[in-house]
Amino acid sequence: MSWTRKHLLDIESLSAHEITTILDTARAFKAVGERAIKKVPALRGKTVINLFVEPSTRTRISFELAAQRLTADIVNFSAEASSLKKGETLKDTARNLEALNADIIIIRHSASGAPHFLSRFLKASVVNAGDGAHEHPTQALLDTFTVLEKKGKVAGLNVTILGDILYSRVARSNIWALTKLGANVTLCGPSTLVPKIFEKMGCRVTHNLEEAIANADVINLLRIQHERQRRSMFPSLGEYTSLFGLTKARMQKTKPDVLIMHPGPINRGVEIDSDIADSSHSVILEQVTNGLAVRMAVLFLVNGGKGPQEVAA
Amino acid sequence: MSWTRKHLLDIESLSAHEITTILDTARAFKAVGERAIKKVPALRGKTVINLFVEPSTRTRISFELAAQRLTADIVNFSAEASSLKKGETLKDTARNLEALNADIIIIRHSASGAPHFLSRFLKASVVNAGDGAHEHPTQALLDTFTVLEKKGKVAGLNVTILGDILYSRVARSNIWALTKLGANVTLCGPSTLVPKIFEKMGCRVTHNLEEAIANADVINLLRIQHERQRRSMFPSLGEYTSLFGLTKARMQKTKPDVLIMHPGPINRGVEIDSDIADSSHSVILEQVTNGLAVRMAVLFLVNGGKGPQEVAA
Amino acid sequence: MSWTRKHLLDIESLSAHEITTILDTARAFKAVGERAIKKVPALRGKTVINLFVEPSTRTRISFELAAQRLTADIVNFSAEASSLKKGETLKDTARNLEALNADIIIIRHSASGAPHFLSRFLKASVVNAGDGAHEHPTQALLDTFTVLEKKGKVAGLNVTILGDILYSRVARSNIWALTKLGANVTLCGPSTLVPKIFEKMGCRVTHNLEEAIANADVINLLRIQHERQRRSMFPSLGEYTSLFGLTKARMQKTKPDVLIMHPGPINRGVEIDSDIADSSHSVILEQVTNGLAVRMAVLFLVNGGKGPQEVAA
Repeated sequence: MSWTRKHLLDIESLSAHEITTILDTARAFKAVGERAIKKVPALRGKTVINLFVEPSTRTRISFELAAQRLTADIVNFSAEASSLKKGETLKDTARNLEALNADIIIIRHSASGAPHFLSRFLKASVVNAGDGAHEHPTQALLDTFTVLEKKGKVAGLNVTILGDILYSRVARSNIWALTKLGANVTLCGPSTLVPKIFEKMGCRVTHNLEEAIANADVINLLRIQHERQRRSMFPSLGEYTSLFGLTKARMQKTKPDVLIMHPGPINRGVEIDSDIADSSHSVILEQVTNGLAVRMAVLFLVNGGKGPQEVAA
Repeated sequence: MSWTRKHLLDIESLSAHEITTILDTARAFKAVGERAIKKVPALRGKTVINLFVEPSTRTRISFELAAQRLTADIVNFSAEASSLKKGETLKDTARNLEALNADIIIIRHSASGAPHFLSRFLKASVVNAGDGAHEHPTQALLDTFTVLEKKGKVAGLNVTILGDILYSRVARSNIWALTKLGANVTLCGPSTLVPKIFEKMGCRVTHNLEEAIANADVINLLRIQHERQRRSMFPSLGEYTSLFGLTKARMQKTKPDVLIMHPGPINRGVEIDSDIADSSHSVILEQVTNGLAVRMAVLFLVNGGKGPQEVAA
Repeated sequence: MSWTRKHLLDIESLSAHEITTILDTARAFKAVGERAIKKVPALRGKTVINLFVEPSTRTRISFELAAQRLTADIVNFSAEASSLKKGETLKDTARNLEALNADIIIIRHSASGAPHFLSRFLKASVVNAGDGAHEHPTQALLDTFTVLEKKGKVAGLNVTILGDILYSRVARSNIWALTKLGANVTLCGPSTLVPKIFEKMGCRVTHNLEEAIANADVINLLRIQHERQRRSMFPSLGEYTSLFGLTKARMQKTKPDVLIMHPGPINRGVEIDSDIADSSHSVILEQVTNGLAVRMAVLFLVNGGKGPQEVAA
């Protein structure tokens, strides 16, 4: 069975097989990034547009380089100084970009559902680069890719996601990806940020950090997102660290081969101790490297690629 | 006869034959945009610089993709954070960009005449991407291209341009292009925005909307440009809509095959009813597609291309 | 002997031979910029990242075009809207960029020593595009390239650097390059901006303009950098001009073949008379052209190039 979707809008609607197809394709593209000439002609003459209504330098650059390594043409459209500020609707902006013969429109938007909305009327492929607090599928794919690469499997692993779950699209996409591939997912953080309702997604919810990390094979630490919180969900950063930060003392009580992940940018000394971020447990920078491979795979597949067998060796 | 100009500064100084040469060349390039590989090597190894002193995302991206599809190298120079803010003159900025072995400098500037000024001392080709309220030649070319494509001719057509004519470079360039190709141009809008003096350009001026649209083959609706008006030229947006907006009721009184055009971004419910913008009469998105083809043609011609016969089939 | 360094961090640590190797390589690349197709495949499939924490349009564009002409992939990372604003450390930002399989990271930063800092832990090559008031090595290399091209030699020439020396990384890098290649360097300007301590770098320091320019073969005028001065170092721009501006009257007392240089952007009528900037003595725009060639050479060499013999004829 091979890839057939035109868009990548979320992880929720993907099958385990589809997720695996993306990861297998990403593995083939990761090898491209390690060559002397990091380029394949797979998307030559295709037009990719980065429509970033919510700013993001890191994700934008990752997609930009992914497109360049596939030999696509890519332009950046950011919210600043754009027609969105002149009162144009998102629909009109997107259709205008598509009218430039765009093959793929990558969208980041502060509103949940914006990519799905675009996919309903665009002929171009739509890739979700993060929509509000809803989903961030390529982040979950690169996280899962990293777990699979390091642990050799995902099924049966205990994965703890720690921190601001409520406002996190990274958490939501990870929960979908991990549970679909058979991992046991535990969510932990302050009760204001980790409500019990998440149990309906097939996770365990706990507010007891010690218990959450004791048996974890993977701990994925989320960034405290001040910018996406409407009001303060905990008294202070210091209090957050003392209750939920991954300190050296707490690290002593984890499994000896535990994997420490973080979507970045990290707040050293807040959600993670600085030494732990730099330790051999940490795969934070490998996540970044894998992100580029995953995004190459996604662009390749939504543009009509079938799977890893089509990536030139 | 073939193209010989080094710059594209305005429509006013072009002959009808020159306009036709650009449109014919654009037709050849439009076919490139419909291929699986939307790229030709025509400008390989050439350097194009987008000098956008006045911000514009849409026009910038259109030129950027046009250059990429011609395989040129392109960089963006925007007014923000640039040396223009450090007190450098426009002439010095342009000569500095040219000194980077630039082949083509595309300029958008809030001052009328800025492109002509540059063309007097630059060895690089200069392309006007909009200068003040003076001209926006590539917009008029893409508008004319769209009329020609849809109606099969321009000569003898009744074209009504509606709205803020006084402050509109789009209107001025369109008037030149349309009258040179033999269309009958009617201008309509509030008397504050459509002074009688425009009759000297060979147009009919009326402040009676019903009369202006009754026999029109094409209605080109301009955007209400709050940003370019020194003071309010009409009481309110609501009043503008009630007097000059293209409403459904008014649309009933137009020709059955009337073409509705707009340079975008559109203000739905202000100058145009939302349903009309999405109707089969509207060619607003095709204008965007044609814009890219026209800009490829312009970059190709000012760089030494002779005409459509040189565009690889 | 051929180039062996992985980074270009400063001029201070380079030998005269290494400087000459860069200049010879730049000469070969300058020829590329004069061809119809200004492109070589030397860095095809390599990834270059412009990490500009301090804004600079001109230097960024020069590096961007240099990378494009070498057929590298390049992305821009600017401080605005980036993770640096979210509290990420420079080290983490740089390691994240490197994790994108970056081959070369070009950094401009307001802190002296930032490029050296990065070079201590990055596997990617680091190129200093200006760090605080410390060094701006590619500017000094393009200045020296221009002197060599125009005068046929550097050794034995009298070079006067005029203006704001204290806060100028351009001055520091030029002093190192010129003295290493055997020029006699004189520094001149207000005593507040040209302290005697600079004599330790092997220069002559004088506050007497007439004396400083009388025997100069080259006068390099620095820009008055209001933005980098903590407090006013002279009463007014007018007073600066009357005391240290290169006026026509003063130009009469220079050597007939004196070369006038300026790193740009120039303040016409402040540090330099407008006519002098446009005279045959001025090589200001040739500096810009040479800058691109020098930056191509630097990117080529730090990426493993050995010297000019490897640049395709």
